[in-house]
Amino acid sequence: MTARSAPERLLAVLAAFDLAHPALSLTDISRRAGLSLTTAHRLVGALTEWGALERDGEGLYHVGLRLWEIAVLAPRGLALRQAALPYLEDLYEATHENVQLAVRDGDDVVYVEWLSGRSAVDVHIRVGGRWPLHATGVGLALLAHGTPEYQGAYCSGPLAAFTPFTITDPVRLRRVLAEVRRTGAAVSDRQVTGDALSVAAPVRGGDGAVAAAVSVVVPREGAAVPTLVPAVRLAARGISRALGWRPAPSVRPGVRYPVGG
Amino acid sequence: MTARSAPERLLAVLAAFDLAHPALSLTDISRRAGLSLTTAHRLVGALTEWGALERDGEGLYHVGLRLWEIAVLAPRGLALRQAALPYLEDLYEATHENVQLAVRDGDDVVYVEWLSGRSAVDVHIRVGGRWPLHATGVGLALLAHGTPEYQGAYCSGPLAAFTPFTITDPVRLRRVLAEVRRTGAAVSDRQVTGDALSVAAPVRGGDGAVAAAVSVVVPREGAAVPTLVPAVRLAARGISRALGWRPAPSVRPGVRYPVGG
Repeated sequence: MTARSAPERLLAVLAAFDLAHPALSLTDISRRAGLSLTTAHRLVGALTEWGALERDGEGLYHVGLRLWEIAVLAPRGLALRQAALPYLEDLYEATHENVQLAVRDGDDVVYVEWLSGRSAVDVHIRVGGRWPLHATGVGLALLAHGTPEYQGAYCSGPLAAFTPFTITDPVRLRRVLAEVRRTGAAVSDRQVTGDALSVAAPVRGGDGAVAAAVSVVVPREGAAVPTLVPAVRLAARGISRALGWRPAPSVRPGVRYPVGG
Repeated sequence: MTARSAPERLLAVLAAFDLAHPALSLTDISRRAGLSLTTAHRLVGALTEWGALERDGEGLYHVGLRLWEIAVLAPRGLALRQAALPYLEDLYEATHENVQLAVRDGDDVVYVEWLSGRSAVDVHIRVGGRWPLHATGVGLALLAHGTPEYQGAYCSGPLAAFTPFTITDPVRLRRVLAEVRRTGAAVSDRQVTGDALSVAAPVRGGDGAVAAAVSVVVPREGAAVPTLVPAVRLAARGISRALGWRPAPSVRPGVRYPVGG
């Protein structure tokens, strides 16, 4: 059907599954992967036998436990999340609001953890979900610490709007990013839904580079931003330390050093 | 090098990664997957380009974020864990000990969630880890609700010992399993390490079948088993309800019905 290589065809079968399509029939897979039914049948058979896919009682295919077992080894997935979890738990216990951990992938944030009280504000995000960088707190925190070239390119590109409050003006976005670097925290106000606000801070890895961002999402009404900022920054620093980050060693007693995460 | 099919070779590259080997060189991958260096190079290239693997600054390969994004769709992985998380959080807040969620895969339990206070007892388990059924609380809870045929076959097989307290006598294991069914909870005492005890309860899915098990692992010294059992059973019932399980509808007022999860 196509001139794609054998690995590409097999990976196309896996890529047929996404958040909106977690369970697929063989016909669905064949259509979504752009493969003939015969080829899809053969590849799905191999993936199922290996455990990468599982077939349920109705004949629908799901992602299998064996693929999950390997994927949890991803350093930017569950491994990052495992190091971060105690600090995310603390942040959740302190706020009882949605707590999130995200990494950058291309021009998106990908949420690798999401702790949510059953009563916390409803947000349109879940683990494995993606969102453009400029529209979320974690995205602003990650973008603000990208290279100047990357930031320039991102700000010049199209900035999608999700509410009337989403930042779509490049000049305003650049100003917001400078503010994020100055304060060590990003505040995203009603950019994804009209009733939520998020406060985020960058997480550094052992090499000192920003590797992730942590955030709290709260109902905008009554949001206590001045008290959330230090809590989120503290959690971000705790995770950074767990990842091997150490503040600059040249700190001398009596010298005030920047606490920016 | 071998007569394996193209999908088998590609999946062998992924299977080269495990908990003990989360970062591999191309040579490691070639050796562990049983592939020539040329073939490994070609397949690793395709997997890296697609995002299933990522190459770090030292030239080592890791599992990539794109594979993780697809794998979190596994119903028995993060999807189960997402439904269970609020109840696991409650159990963690109530006990501040290690809280775990596991499913059965073959003769093993696989841990799909693991909340751990930084001060909780050190256990030799992590997300994605495996352990034989008879040696853990979650495993006993899952095994006790397997078919009689499966239980019989398992009890007749070799029962590996990890401490002097691991159950290796088939007669004793059958007695323990009957007790688990009678009480609705499994207690595993120093079976994995000499200082830990776990209390587990089965989780049922929408079809009423046991789909997972939840447990708390505590230091054996001072463990308050009588108070842990109802907490763990309550969490298991909460998760079961979140998965669509409903107690038998024929309950009449005045009739005492079994509360076994």
